[in-house]
Amino acid sequence: MTEFMDVHHGMKGITDAQLQEAHRADLAIQADEGVQFKQAWADPESGVVYCLSEAPSAEAVQRIHARTGHPTDEIHPVPLSA
Amino acid sequence: MTEFMDVHHGMKGITDAQLQEAHRADLAIQADEGVQFKQAWADPESGVVYCLSEAPSAEAVQRIHARTGHPTDEIHPVPLSA
Repeated sequence: MTEFMDVHHGMKGITDAQLQEAHRADLAIQADEGVQFKQAWADPESGVVYCLSEAPSAEAVQRIHARTGHPTDEIHPVPLSA
Repeated sequence: MTEFMDVHHGMKGITDAQLQEAHRADLAIQADEGVQFKQAWADPESGVVYCLSEAPSAEAVQRIHARTGHPTDEIHPVPLSA
């Protein structure tokens, strides 16, 4: 398992409720791909959202996000952390 | 205080030791600007590094990173998290 950071753009004006709901939707089906979403951070002004997960592959993360309606192909493995 | 996510590019091949050292350098002077760096994640293959901090402003984060030799102007406030 590797940690991944994925980035979503174009989410300008996202509310706290929308972020919680998107995160809950991911959590609800993440086990299908062996993914564990750990945290998500959003900047409503620029519309950027970052998600940290632990997963078997970037494709696994991508499939979950696609199924819950917020696909992204900007997914980086982050094997190093401090 | 707000949380910020900042992003560094061009760090291809960064090692664990280099990431730890960069993070330690930030921690050593962060109090000068009232910043608290919380975590950093790196992808040595694409050369992207993400840093999560709590700070009074993006400029405060920028000044610490500039003084420790890894400036970036890609700094987003992330007031929402899940």
